[in-house]
Amino acid sequence: MAEKRSSYKSLAKTLTWEDGVLTLLDQTLLPVEVVSEKQESIEQVWDSIKKLKVRGAPAIGIAGAYGVLYGVKNKTNLPVQEFLEELKKSADYLDSSRPTAVNLSWALKRMVAKAKTEVKNKPSSSSKDIYITLEMEAIAIHEEDKKICKNIGLNGKGLIQDGMGVLTHCNAGSLATSELGTATAPMYLAHEDGITFKVYSDETRPLLQGARLTSWELQQSGVDVTLITDNMAAFMMNKGEVDLVIVGTDRVAANGDTANKIGTMGVAILAKHFDIPVYIACPSSTIDFETETGEEIVIEERDPEEVLFFGERRTGPVGMKVRNPAFDVTPHELITGFITDKGLVEAPFKENLKKAFG
Amino acid sequence: MAEKRSSYKSLAKTLTWEDGVLTLLDQTLLPVEVVSEKQESIEQVWDSIKKLKVRGAPAIGIAGAYGVLYGVKNKTNLPVQEFLEELKKSADYLDSSRPTAVNLSWALKRMVAKAKTEVKNKPSSSSKDIYITLEMEAIAIHEEDKKICKNIGLNGKGLIQDGMGVLTHCNAGSLATSELGTATAPMYLAHEDGITFKVYSDETRPLLQGARLTSWELQQSGVDVTLITDNMAAFMMNKGEVDLVIVGTDRVAANGDTANKIGTMGVAILAKHFDIPVYIACPSSTIDFETETGEEIVIEERDPEEVLFFGERRTGPVGMKVRNPAFDVTPHELITGFITDKGLVEAPFKENLKKAFG
Repeated sequence: MAEKRSSYKSLAKTLTWEDGVLTLLDQTLLPVEVVSEKQESIEQVWDSIKKLKVRGAPAIGIAGAYGVLYGVKNKTNLPVQEFLEELKKSADYLDSSRPTAVNLSWALKRMVAKAKTEVKNKPSSSSKDIYITLEMEAIAIHEEDKKICKNIGLNGKGLIQDGMGVLTHCNAGSLATSELGTATAPMYLAHEDGITFKVYSDETRPLLQGARLTSWELQQSGVDVTLITDNMAAFMMNKGEVDLVIVGTDRVAANGDTANKIGTMGVAILAKHFDIPVYIACPSSTIDFETETGEEIVIEERDPEEVLFFGERRTGPVGMKVRNPAFDVTPHELITGFITDKGLVEAPFKENLKKAFG
Repeated sequence: MAEKRSSYKSLAKTLTWEDGVLTLLDQTLLPVEVVSEKQESIEQVWDSIKKLKVRGAPAIGIAGAYGVLYGVKNKTNLPVQEFLEELKKSADYLDSSRPTAVNLSWALKRMVAKAKTEVKNKPSSSSKDIYITLEMEAIAIHEEDKKICKNIGLNGKGLIQDGMGVLTHCNAGSLATSELGTATAPMYLAHEDGITFKVYSDETRPLLQGARLTSWELQQSGVDVTLITDNMAAFMMNKGEVDLVIVGTDRVAANGDTANKIGTMGVAILAKHFDIPVYIACPSSTIDFETETGEEIVIEERDPEEVLFFGERRTGPVGMKVRNPAFDVTPHELITGFITDKGLVEAPFKENLKKAFG
């Protein structure tokens, strides 16, 4: 009975900062190869973000915060104003690697603001002092993310009981964050507690984040995970193999309408049909009180080639018309609750989200 | 206004029989290459069926019926009994190319039975006479299939109105039959009539019949078709772009429960949620009165590698657990009606299917 269980702790780290060096797990090679790359320059970090070697909003933000340090670490003998200019230049440069990534932009702004505040509050600070403060700020961003994920895990793990089947879609996992992930956090902590349950991971076409990433990280962590194609979810639910759905989110409107990877709304409709609860795991920062309902959320359509090709292999005809919405918006009526870092939130969402976070 | 429209008539033929030669469109190369292969021996036909160059129950049956002729065409100077033995041997051989294909087995049995009946009814028949009868029987099987598809088309085309969006799943098209297909027949005939409508083709993981085959044949025929991944169906329905679902079937139970490619049940549940009618296109021969309900239908699970690979490219981790049910069973409550070669059948299905075909 003292069988040693693998856990999320045995998982290759998405990103680490040690002795002033950022190391990133190259997610483009998963699940075939597990390669961690020491980053040696700000240009390399730019390239890693651009090429999706690191992806997932929180992880990109953290990589950006550490990355900007590379831009200024050899500039600490400059006068403070020039140092600040170099910092700003480095931040702008990194921001251009993925212009739509809100979290990257947020983290870089936070780094620049931190330096300015330091200069304002302690005019005697040297460039070297500011660098040290910046490094501590990047570490703080990283630690805050770990803590948020941990709290989501603690608040959600009670939903997972012995013998259950849990379905998830896309990757809101460790690979998208710094450690426990969001949707996966309750799974990792329930697993740590010795709860026996199964996870079904939708492969998540077109980019297959479920097949390539979620399946891999859960498997590596010793969680009992089974990969299915997106169109098998109804079959599994009908067989009674799914008791709970947990997914992540990119943005939650004030009324609880939830934007997430394409296919999430379909899963929620199926779950409703089979009377299965649907939970959204999210940091409270993803709740956007400026957006009243999901109708205001603009859905970006991505490159048709994602649907027409798989790697180099063509799957659809030349000249084929394609739709490729990146996200869908699950109406709040289909959602049972939100697992946040500050607790579980249940319906009525407009009221309760505001009460908890507004 | 006299714009020339492409039609299903311009589509490369799935299979033809001309001057004693069977030609098959090699479906394994679609949609990248369109190559028709003249079959030169029974061994080549066996191989074409085995390698899925020809697929779809009706098309395999027809290919088998013609294929068996290759086995005996140089045996017509044998005495009748020996000729019959060769025929039986050829039929058994071809049947082994895809042992689970009921339609192949059915067509081969029908060919052997035809020869035996001929000998019994006309004892003076020579082996050459029997060969001629067999060729006519194969042509009859082929023509019957064309007629069935045509009638499904005629009975269903009225469901498709100007401005509609029609969603289909998998390939129950021309490529699976001899000409119009089953689910596609109403689409092809509505298009011939000048009705303006859109088709959404689910790509249909894991084997992508929708992306590779349905999208291709509709596109080639001039039908306005858009390819989506399976998990985009709910998004399209929610946007009001789908007014009708038409899919094919492998087997319909006496109560109307319908087995079809994995993912069909999910589509039907989504359609119910959005109040969109769901029709099953089927030859009356697929209605199985021996099977009372869908619960009796055994769902075969296929090779996990289909989910873990795409062509040669791995998509899921090594050693990953996978589910890969080939079919699901859509409960009759989710079905609006059946488009059959003998007319439209609506609920209550148990009663009305029996009345129409029992």
